[in-house]
This record gives sequence, structure tokens and C-alpha cells, in this order.
Amino acid sequence: MLIAETIRTKRDGNALAPEVIEELIRAYAAGEIPDYQMAALLMTVYFQGLDERELAAWAGAMLHSGEVVDLSAVPGGKVDKHSTGGVGDKVSIPLAPLVAACGVRVPMISGRGLGHTGGTLDKLESIPGFRTDLPVARFVEGVATVGACMIGQTDTLVPADRRMYALRDVTGTVESIPLISASIMSKKLAEGVSGLVLDVKVGSGAFMKTVERARDLARTMVGIGTRHGVKTVAYLTSMSQPIGWAVGNALEVAESIEVLRGEGPDDTTALVVTLGGRMLVLGGAAATQDEGEAAIRRAIETGAGLARFRDMVAFQGGDVAAIDETSRLPRARSRRDVPAPLAGYVTGIDCEKVGLAALVVGGGRRRKEDVIDPAVGLRVRARLGARVEGGDPLATIEYDDPAHLDDAHALVARAYRIGDEPPADEPLVIDIVE
Amino acid sequence: MLIAETIRTKRDGNALAPEVIEELIRAYAAGEIPDYQMAALLMTVYFQGLDERELAAWAGAMLHSGEVVDLSAVPGGKVDKHSTGGVGDKVSIPLAPLVAACGVRVPMISGRGLGHTGGTLDKLESIPGFRTDLPVARFVEGVATVGACMIGQTDTLVPADRRMYALRDVTGTVESIPLISASIMSKKLAEGVSGLVLDVKVGSGAFMKTVERARDLARTMVGIGTRHGVKTVAYLTSMSQPIGWAVGNALEVAESIEVLRGEGPDDTTALVVTLGGRMLVLGGAAATQDEGEAAIRRAIETGAGLARFRDMVAFQGGDVAAIDETSRLPRARSRRDVPAPLAGYVTGIDCEKVGLAALVVGGGRRRKEDVIDPAVGLRVRARLGARVEGGDPLATIEYDDPAHLDDAHALVARAYRIGDEPPADEPLVIDIVE
Repeated sequence: MLIAETIRTKRDGNALAPEVIEELIRAYAAGEIPDYQMAALLMTVYFQGLDERELAAWAGAMLHSGEVVDLSAVPGGKVDKHSTGGVGDKVSIPLAPLVAACGVRVPMISGRGLGHTGGTLDKLESIPGFRTDLPVARFVEGVATVGACMIGQTDTLVPADRRMYALRDVTGTVESIPLISASIMSKKLAEGVSGLVLDVKVGSGAFMKTVERARDLARTMVGIGTRHGVKTVAYLTSMSQPIGWAVGNALEVAESIEVLRGEGPDDTTALVVTLGGRMLVLGGAAATQDEGEAAIRRAIETGAGLARFRDMVAFQGGDVAAIDETSRLPRARSRRDVPAPLAGYVTGIDCEKVGLAALVVGGGRRRKEDVIDPAVGLRVRARLGARVEGGDPLATIEYDDPAHLDDAHALVARAYRIGDEPPADEPLVIDIVE
Repeated sequence: MLIAETIRTKRDGNALAPEVIEELIRAYAAGEIPDYQMAALLMTVYFQGLDERELAAWAGAMLHSGEVVDLSAVPGGKVDKHSTGGVGDKVSIPLAPLVAACGVRVPMISGRGLGHTGGTLDKLESIPGFRTDLPVARFVEGVATVGACMIGQTDTLVPADRRMYALRDVTGTVESIPLISASIMSKKLAEGVSGLVLDVKVGSGAFMKTVERARDLARTMVGIGTRHGVKTVAYLTSMSQPIGWAVGNALEVAESIEVLRGEGPDDTTALVVTLGGRMLVLGGAAATQDEGEAAIRRAIETGAGLARFRDMVAFQGGDVAAIDETSRLPRARSRRDVPAPLAGYVTGIDCEKVGLAALVVGGGRRRKEDVIDPAVGLRVRARLGARVEGGDPLATIEYDDPAHLDDAHALVARAYRIGDEPPADEPLVIDIVE
């Protein structure tokens, strides 16, 4: 009866008291509230939203539904970065060791790929032997000794989110900014961080298709972080084309190593420097953004970031030799170019189609239970503004099994728009919310 | 996956195709769709509504989730009346035999009381021996031979509504005009009627507190009926005070018999004549409303309605002697007057409080499983506009168990407003929607 009353209160546009939200999430995580009542409540939240106070309580209750990583014994700033998910977004992989090399620890709990966007865990696991399933105690040890550790969600952290996400997935309540924000932020707060940089992707390949929605999500997440005493900054960055040249798990690890060597694509390196600079500011290792960015650039030049990455790979059981000789990473056996149909400039790239092309050749998952091929993916050959002649390769698909090659080819071909004039330059950072 | 897609479609404000709705309700009734998905969908309907085409499909699918009474072998018009529920609303009891006596058959499947409103079944069951649980075949026989039969919902009729109503009750999705309309209309259409008169109550004691909401509900229900080929008319009638003098099960049966004898309260008799007149028009036994009303009045004067009521009671196993000697009906042992606190005119009666007073002395149910005392209730002694002196009885509570008598007394006392001027006269019929 209490729950039905709570649903009606929210349904009628009234705010729920923090205690009510806390009890609700606790009882749901404990299995005391049936899914049908939670489903109805989630749909009321979809329509009525949650105000700042409700949201802080909601995220806090999710957070306290399980264990919270205790990093209090680890000295200094502990800052993580979270991206809402893009195509070719390997930024976390070079970023974490670079920030660690500059003196700010990075406790990073990441996710797997689903649909057209990849996942950091899947990418890291393409390094032979690399373990992402470390227990929390070992994770804390990695953060303390190496300075950066990257693992997957454990059973003990934020169990309410796991149950709730599964329910949202089948009840049409995923696409709610407060629910997305609470889900992301509860998991990030559970890492025990003191600071957090959010990378909210905007554009065709992103979950947020418009700047308005992205800004709304950014503000909501920053509000939750701030209310929980975590310095939180959100960058809105462009997802109008894949990040870097590589899309696919091992391919993106190889490109991450190029970034750490100072040989990475400009856009990827720029993102790493910008976000890393801010992480150093939040972690107290730099006084200004410029100072932070300079420190990250130095850590690239000196190889300190690459060394730290080696340490992290070693700590997590990976084959360190594969870092120095990327030919030891899994590699697809076959390649096929997707040619430009006519001469002109690349004026548009539909990232979702590019991401799906990598998925259909085996590099991604449609469903959680799908098994991925770490070797496959594609390499972008022509980015926005590139001049191409008819027949020039737009992208090269790297594949093992030709079964879905034609589908992937068609997706890439349809992803590209070729025009007579080069497109206007777009800034990488669209906005900063803090 | 299909269901999650359907939920999102509706959530985003798009109409669902009739085939989708039909499959949805079929699968839900068959237990193939879990409650959590239906709960989310019901909440989207709460927020987004259903258009006329969706509603007709929804009500039709509910209707066809079970058996539909086949009255095709019974000649002539078959017309029912449904009230959205009021306090002291015993209208169905004299109405059905009067309409039957005028040549239009009345197949009536009614509900039980819940909360502050009573239910026709509970009232009828205060007649010793009266059975409301007849099987469908016997119901058809009653309609064919007696001309009127009044039973409760069976397991075989509209099973989807039973499951869905239970879910709505605990998920905050009861108060939705399309869902209320589909629930009511599917049950009425399942009776196999050719015409239907709806009595939508408006005011403090009604489910619909405002004329706007009541009109919206009326239009929605009339739309569903019309699309299903059933001539449907809705009356919006005032629920600003209890109907008649009696509130309570056996008390209301006794008052119904007074109506059939031509000795009933004016308001109750007027409602019976108005609604009955329209039922005769819809059933083809009267050319105009005036003609229909005159026929009903005649059936009261001649005693034809009372005779038909006797036949119906006999057919349904009730003690016919209790009709002629109402002292054979259950009667409470004790009485307590609720006095007027000061002299003046009765300017307002909160029907919900009056209904709850009858409930707390044992005449109603808070929960479906509560057992009621058919004898108890209350008798209104001063209606709107009555002149009272301080100490004059406003109402008399008739009770057996004094446990909650003081609560009932306080409810009645708080229900009455006494002022210096008599209130403006209010019409019984506020509007007609057809």
C-alpha cells in the first residue's frame, strides 16, 4: 500500500521525501518490492523527472545498496573519468596511466560494449592475459601501488543498479535523464573517488543526439556529484565522427599505445590531454587547466604514461610484451576496403552505422551474452573534411568470418556523406558544465 | 523485446496499432507478458492516454479475453444501466424490473462495494437466499424468462480485466480515464447488450469530482460503446448528496421496494424514471424519452415493476416474502441520531464521509476480503436545503456493534454544512452525452 501511494505521489507531480526514496531503493534491492511496482514508479520518473534533492537521495540510496570502495587509506587525489559512450572511444586506456604518472590516482570501474558503442573492458581484455575481474581488495591495491587500476563492475558494488537496469531495459525506462544520471553516478561514487570528469558525447553516434539533451544530462550528473561532495566536471564533446582511426577492441588498444607513444591521432590525443588536464586539477596535481594539460603532454613525451600503462598491464596479469610489440595483439586475418562512390569531401559520418559495422563483423554485442572477436573491427581512412577521389578507401574492414562482411560494408558505405564543399570545422569540446 | 518496443512507442506519444493492442491483451491474459512490463505500459497509458481507435481495440481485446454472453436467441432489446458508483445508489434494483416490465430485457452484471461506495450485489444479497453467483447459462435463462437478471462477475467473463485491475490497484494506474472506461465497457459489452445507459456520478461522493472529468469519462465510454455497435448514452448526474434516504445494504433494498410501490424518495424515483425511460428508447419499447418515462411511471403505478422484482427474486433463490414484508430483511439492533449542532439550512453534505460512516459501522469494505454486515447503515434525515433546528437529527446511524459508532458519528457530523441561507437548487441531470 505504501508503494502504491508513493507511485501516485510521484505520478501526480509531487516530490518524494529523501527518506521515502532511500527506503524504496533499499527495499527494492532487498527484493521486498516487486518488479511491477518498481516498473510503474520508474515510468512515473520517466514522465515527471526527479528534482535535485530527490536525485541526490536516489543516487545515494543506489550507492549504499552495496559496498563502497574505501580508498581513504590511499593518499592524494583519486579522480576517475567516465564517458557516456562513443564509437572508437578508447580515451580511458591512455588517459588512466597518464594521469597516474602525473600523481593523481585513477580508480576506474568500466563497462562492456553493447550495441554500436564499445566498452573499455572488452578492449583491455584483447591484451593477452589481462584480467578485469579483480576483487575489490586487489583493485584498491592497484590504485595504491600502480596508481591506476581498471576493472569491471563487481557483484558487491551498487547491486540495486544491476537489478534496476535489467528492469529498465525491458520496460522502456532506459531513456530517462534522471535515471541514467543516478545509474552512472551511483557507480562512479561507489569507486570512492574525490573527483570526477564526465565526457558526455553528443551527436549521431552518441546516446544523446542533441546538445540540449547532453547539457541536461551533464548538469544532472554534476548536480549529483556535487551534492555527494565529489568535485565533478562534465565536458560535452563531439561524436560527429569516430574518435581516432581505429574502431574495434585490439585495434583500439594498439591506437591507445600510439597515443602513449606520442604517435596517436590528433583528436584522440587532444581529448586525452584536455580531460587528463582537468583530472589533474581536480586531483590537486595542477593549479590550472593549462598546467594540467602541459603535465599530461610531458608524460607522453617522456614515456612516463607508457611506463605506467606497462605497470598496470603487469599488475592486472596482461602480457606486457604486447605493449611494446603490438603485433602480439590479436589481429584479423582479412581486410576489405570500402571505396568512395565519387570524388568530393567527406561531409558527414554516421557514427552509429560505423559502430554497427564493427559489431556485425563480430567486434560487438547485440545482447549481453554475445561473444566478441577481439581482433576484428575497422580502420577509418577518411575523416570529416578529407578530400577523396572516387574509389579511394573510406574505411578498411578487418575481419575473420566473412559471413556478415557485406552487411558491414553496406553500413560503412551508407555512413559516409560526400559533398562538393568541405564541412565547417567543429570544435572537439562543445561545452563545459561544472 | 516486442513489448519493450511497444512500451516505448506509447511512451513517446505514438498510437499503437489495433493488432498490437489485441496481441498485447491476449498475451497478458494468457500470462505470457510479465506484470512488470504491463505495469510500465499502464503507466504510459496514464500519461499519454489512448485515442478512440486504440481504446476500441483495448476494450474489444479485454472483452474477447473470455466468454461473451450470447443473448442472440433472446428476442427484443437487451439494455443495461451502469453507474460509476455513488453513495446510497440503489437505482439498479428498482430500475431493472421496471424496464423488464415495460418489455426491454435487462442483463445486468454488477460489482461489490469498495471504499465509500456500495455495490448492488451486496445490497441484493441482504435479501435472504438471494444468489448473485448464477452460472452464465442460468443468467441467460433469467434474462429470457424473467426479463431481468442481476449477477456478479463470473470467472469466465473478461478475465483480462480481473488480472489488470489487480495490477492497476497496486501500481497507481487506477485513476486513468481510458483504463477506467475500457474496464467498465469491456464488462458491459460482455453481457451481450444491444444498448447501454451510463450514469456518471459527479461530486464529492463520486469517483469523478468535477464535471469536466465526468464528461471526459462519459465521452470516452460512449465512444467505446458506439464503436462496438452498442447504442450508448451517458447521463452526468449529481452526487452532491446521497441518493434517497437510505445508505446501507438491506436499508437500500427496503427503499428500492418503496420506489417500486410508488412510495420512494423523489430523487431516487426521478433517477429511475429518467434512466429507465432512456433504456426503453434504446431497447425499442418507446419512441421518445417522454413516452419511455411515462411507461416507467405506469409500471410503478400498476405494480408491474414490483411483480417483476418478485419474479426476479424468486428466480434467483431469494425470499419473496421479504419483498412484501420488508421487516423480514436484516435490521440493525440499535440506532443513534446525529444532531444538528445549530439551527439553519443544510447547505452541503460530503457524500464520501457519509459513505465512510456506513462503512465503519460494518456496512462496507475497506479491502476486498472484508465481510460486511447487511443490516447496518444510516438513514439521512435532513437533505440539502432542509431547515433544521439545533438538536434536530441530521441522520440516524443503524448499528449492531458499537465499536466504531463514535467514528461513524464524527464522520456524519463533519459531513454536514449548515448555513443561514438555503442553497441554490441543483438539477439532478447535469448533462447528457450520446
